[in-house]
Amino acid sequence: MSEPRRSIDLNADLGEGFGAYRAGDDAGLLRVVTSANVACGFHAGDPLVMRRTVADAAAHGVAVGAHPGYPDLLGFGRRDLAASADEVTAYVVYQIGALSAFCAAAGTRLRYVKAHGALYNRAARDASVADAVAQGVHLADPSLVLLGLAGSELVRAGRAAGLRVAAEAFVDRAYLPSGDLVPRSEPGATLHDAAQVAARAVRMAREGTVEAIDGTVLHVSPDSLCAHGDNPDALAIVRAVREALEAAGIAVAPFA
Amino acid sequence: MSEPRRSIDLNADLGEGFGAYRAGDDAGLLRVVTSANVACGFHAGDPLVMRRTVADAAAHGVAVGAHPGYPDLLGFGRRDLAASADEVTAYVVYQIGALSAFCAAAGTRLRYVKAHGALYNRAARDASVADAVAQGVHLADPSLVLLGLAGSELVRAGRAAGLRVAAEAFVDRAYLPSGDLVPRSEPGATLHDAAQVAARAVRMAREGTVEAIDGTVLHVSPDSLCAHGDNPDALAIVRAVREALEAAGIAVAPFA
Amino acid sequence: MSEPRRSIDLNADLGEGFGAYRAGDDAGLLRVVTSANVACGFHAGDPLVMRRTVADAAAHGVAVGAHPGYPDLLGFGRRDLAASADEVTAYVVYQIGALSAFCAAAGTRLRYVKAHGALYNRAARDASVADAVAQGVHLADPSLVLLGLAGSELVRAGRAAGLRVAAEAFVDRAYLPSGDLVPRSEPGATLHDAAQVAARAVRMAREGTVEAIDGTVLHVSPDSLCAHGDNPDALAIVRAVREALEAAGIAVAPFA
Amino acid sequence: MSEPRRSIDLNADLGEGFGAYRAGDDAGLLRVVTSANVACGFHAGDPLVMRRTVADAAAHGVAVGAHPGYPDLLGFGRRDLAASADEVTAYVVYQIGALSAFCAAAGTRLRYVKAHGALYNRAARDASVADAVAQGVHLADPSLVLLGLAGSELVRAGRAAGLRVAAEAFVDRAYLPSGDLVPRSEPGATLHDAAQVAARAVRMAREGTVEAIDGTVLHVSPDSLCAHGDNPDALAIVRAVREALEAAGIAVAPFA
Repeated sequence: MSEPRRSIDLNADLGEGFGAYRAGDDAGLLRVVTSANVACGFHAGDPLVMRRTVADAAAHGVAVGAHPGYPDLLGFGRRDLAASADEVTAYVVYQIGALSAFCAAAGTRLRYVKAHGALYNRAARDASVADAVAQGVHLADPSLVLLGLAGSELVRAGRAAGLRVAAEAFVDRAYLPSGDLVPRSEPGATLHDAAQVAARAVRMAREGTVEAIDGTVLHVSPDSLCAHGDNPDALAIVRAVREALEAAGIAVAPFA
Repeated sequence: MSEPRRSIDLNADLGEGFGAYRAGDDAGLLRVVTSANVACGFHAGDPLVMRRTVADAAAHGVAVGAHPGYPDLLGFGRRDLAASADEVTAYVVYQIGALSAFCAAAGTRLRYVKAHGALYNRAARDASVADAVAQGVHLADPSLVLLGLAGSELVRAGRAAGLRVAAEAFVDRAYLPSGDLVPRSEPGATLHDAAQVAARAVRMAREGTVEAIDGTVLHVSPDSLCAHGDNPDALAIVRAVREALEAAGIAVAPFA
Repeated sequence: MSEPRRSIDLNADLGEGFGAYRAGDDAGLLRVVTSANVACGFHAGDPLVMRRTVADAAAHGVAVGAHPGYPDLLGFGRRDLAASADEVTAYVVYQIGALSAFCAAAGTRLRYVKAHGALYNRAARDASVADAVAQGVHLADPSLVLLGLAGSELVRAGRAAGLRVAAEAFVDRAYLPSGDLVPRSEPGATLHDAAQVAARAVRMAREGTVEAIDGTVLHVSPDSLCAHGDNPDALAIVRAVREALEAAGIAVAPFA
Repeated sequence: MSEPRRSIDLNADLGEGFGAYRAGDDAGLLRVVTSANVACGFHAGDPLVMRRTVADAAAHGVAVGAHPGYPDLLGFGRRDLAASADEVTAYVVYQIGALSAFCAAAGTRLRYVKAHGALYNRAARDASVADAVAQGVHLADPSLVLLGLAGSELVRAGRAAGLRVAAEAFVDRAYLPSGDLVPRSEPGATLHDAAQVAARAVRMAREGTVEAIDGTVLHVSPDSLCAHGDNPDALAIVRAVREALEAAGIAVAPFA
């Protein structure tokens, strides 16, 4: 898919509060993104937050995706956990179901699933976890789209499971030459310069490529661009990305 | 509904394990009951247990109900919690959704909802909590049946919300003259004599009545009879109930 | 104790973050308060947050108190929970122990205990819960001071258990004529005007009194004044309180 | 330490219930073992269970040890979790503190610390996690003994941190030639034949050796023998071990 895209999706993580804790500028992000990855209560989110987030997304015409993670609120789902394939599948089914019910309550429906954090990273590289995630999505609802890292095991597993898949690239994360993301624990993992990030986004959408930290050109051909909602300047970055895409003649619209 | 019933449902709580912890003889109960109240991960149950329990229920032709409780695993959902009406509604939607996805995964569908423990007891007496539960069920899926204590606020709230409702009576719990259950913290709250329990069950089904602890005759007219799965002699009691009902010419069949 | 005080303690809730979630301006508060009520992991706080908070408090010469709450992170410990007296005692022992170990790790020691949220409110009014809290403190370490609402059941229970007790008043919370706090769910429960709050604080320290919402003059005679760390203007309010006290010739110093 | 021992300690995991869930035959084990590894609420155990278990152990003259694990009740602490060294240290401090307070409440004191499950296994092999555990123990209370797998990184780390250490061997777990335990996920990981286990125990105590699954003779020289409390025949095995040791002239007594 190397021809220039006419439109691309823009997704971000939303609904990451929990109880009295707030996280992210959901109201701001919902005005800019076209797809919302909504936390499902395992690594973040709670039933009240989920209900409100889904209702707000629906009101803004933003596509709702489930964002299942490991059951590790304390670690925000960012710590690898040696869960078995059966456990991963069951965790994915559970979280999809919970979020689906809030979609029904809001008069909308769940469109896609994107794994979170350590589960996302493991499913990108580890075929058995990728298959476990894909199986969970398929069991819960085979009409859902599986959104995964471009070129990852998860995208492969989704296709193998008979799911529709969408590939994404990260506008504000550095890439290893392997196509994996630079781990958050390493310096330079996250990009904070809005102009730089916006330029990467346009290149990703137009050329389907991104430069890894060593200069390697990676072919990512994304259907969706992800910007993180959890860093302080997130909203400014996402806005810059959207403006740059539109200025380059690329419409921003949901993939699902 | 004072004429004798030709058939009645028999329900029990199942899927109450968590992680390494086991609870109840689910395999045994699934051979006797016609409806399974499946814990949804808040007061008991976990994704693996839910998946297995729903699959086993489906395999035995047992109707699956969601058994949402307060988010209090430590207290097994038996401690009253001052959750707001909005919180209760969101907890109910979440748990119904999670269990529904396991029903879809097992090729079956969720039939009904029965609140658990302290949420059940509060929804039986407290109109605002009853309305909150009923609203949660309706938001998640208005085709679900709401199963509640005969004569309770919850049954009223379910009807008011436009839900189909089913009333239940407890074969192995003592009743107060008010129609409420004797709290578990009081002596005599639970009945352990299988013959006595079976005789109560037949009377409930045939005459629609039960005697409270002071001898008051309560009109309960149940659509379903509940026997608890969490005491050691649970299975023997449920078997005795089913045999006595059938011996009295009353078929045991799902209400839903 | 109606004579004017020469010094008074100023306490606030600290260490209320959890995992990736932040809460309150701990660094700012530690420069102003003399006692820190540190969350212990049940309603807020986690081991990393506790370790850092205790170390920071010790570095600032702020007295460390344990701030045990109900096991309800989702509700931030603000929802009443029907825990038994034995459960409450065990929860208090557990949380005191956990925080004590971080005090040992930081080369300091735990000075006092103040219950949090719904547990605080219940222990203020309900003699059996008050006794359960006091017993927990005594079992864990009888040398600890129990800090409770002036005039409350908890203060009584602490004395009855043989503990040293300290009474506190709330500078930024409205009082009912009964001496209880206006519940947070009601309008006007929290005061946000720094000048007004500072004036109340001086009157509390100097005259030992506060006006309830209906104008009733309550005699509170506090050993400590509490300002909440969890509202946005908390730091400004606490600073104003400290400045007003010092301007009035009342030293701010730990009670313990 | 190759000369025959006159006495050896016998330890088992206790207090692994949670809320309504029961686990293990604690009452039986307390009559046979000399040291009790008591769960601290992260992977198992809760405040009520901890209080009761510590009191019962004290009443039987059994030495109390803290048994800290990963914060993973759902996985019973048996799943590896990519926690940072700082997190591990803080988790260990927290859990030691909590259990210490119950020891104080029971009029006894905490003697030792033994990591649980996946944390135990990782600390046996991974120097940085071993150091993190040892540092946690030292920070909480440098007088505690650190009990670890004979020959492991954890024993080394404990010595390096200036702690007293005790080495243990597992009577009912198979060994790899490396000295690590055969993972529970593999067949033959756990031994169930009481006579075989008892014979291994006597050899461990008398000769300081055990045969790995391939026949390699491992020198383990344990100060303590561990038998698991969580399998159905645990009690029979532990009894057989104790009887065999005593019949061989080896006293069973706490190491601490």
